[in-house]
Amino acid sequence: MELFEAIHGRRSCRKLSSEPVSRDDLNAILEAGRFAPSWANTQCQEVVVVREPEIKQRLHETLSPHNPARAAVLEAPVVLVLCGRKGRSGFKGEDASTALGDWLMFDVGLFAQNVTLAAHALGFGTVHVGAFDHQSVAKILAAPEDVQPVEILPLGRPAGEPGRAPRRRELKDFVHEERFAKKT
Amino acid sequence: MELFEAIHGRRSCRKLSSEPVSRDDLNAILEAGRFAPSWANTQCQEVVVVREPEIKQRLHETLSPHNPARAAVLEAPVVLVLCGRKGRSGFKGEDASTALGDWLMFDVGLFAQNVTLAAHALGFGTVHVGAFDHQSVAKILAAPEDVQPVEILPLGRPAGEPGRAPRRRELKDFVHEERFAKKT
Repeated sequence: MELFEAIHGRRSCRKLSSEPVSRDDLNAILEAGRFAPSWANTQCQEVVVVREPEIKQRLHETLSPHNPARAAVLEAPVVLVLCGRKGRSGFKGEDASTALGDWLMFDVGLFAQNVTLAAHALGFGTVHVGAFDHQSVAKILAAPEDVQPVEILPLGRPAGEPGRAPRRRELKDFVHEERFAKKT
Repeated sequence: MELFEAIHGRRSCRKLSSEPVSRDDLNAILEAGRFAPSWANTQCQEVVVVREPEIKQRLHETLSPHNPARAAVLEAPVVLVLCGRKGRSGFKGEDASTALGDWLMFDVGLFAQNVTLAAHALGFGTVHVGAFDHQSVAKILAAPEDVQPVEILPLGRPAGEPGRAPRRRELKDFVHEERFAKKT
């Protein structure tokens, strides 16, 4: 798939069929993530691939009952949990290099965008799920202390037609020339 | 350009020619960012497009003298500064929805990946620059108090051949099946 077609066509998919994801497809998707850049090539990302129904059930329970992606965590054939190892991205040795501290969220974001675009190009749907109890997910996955679960990403063939793209701010609403105007 | 070709072929470009970037190309690149998803469609991103040499010079001075991307901030015809508005991504009203607080770094990461892939597909080079004095950059750009500059992204035609891809961890080194093994 052409890059701009992938970027413009990708949608959040909250209805996914249970059709399995092949190991080859999954590897191609994860390889796309692997090629994302990272702070000084620190590659803080860690990914858990969940297929066991019992673990999906437990992940599902960490979402609020009102989360519209809740069903997808149960129904998707594969649920990825994207994590970051703390204290690497944005650090030089023990010290944070910038006032922004740990850049793991940024690097996991770069990784996640490659993963979701690659999934879309191969005919799969995904939806970013960030609103859950992160501490419970760390326990469920037996995450080491320095590993921060960031998001849950259900992955599978879309069931039904994708929704419309949500309305977005126009470029003129978020692009500033040379500097911010006096009043923003 | 095909998506996987873009993902696998993109490199950090620290040597950029001064050849101008057309408004159409710049808009296509920023539109790609605009189509990145965001937390509950909050779209916290703000982008400053810098072309004035004097502002580039001042941005350049916020990098450490050892930063290998320092020259690119001066030489690139366009320097983007990607920012995020605080208190939106990851929030419900005034309250953070998760233990991770503000998700602006994650959402700016999603945005940045689309921008750098789109730039690459159109024949431009970029390099993520995160190590600089963020407070000084906020002042130089007259950023509102709730706007956090995240990264500087020089953009231009690559001067010279791209370097080799940096060595990356193999999938087996960061992909875990079902949960983390006892020792990681």
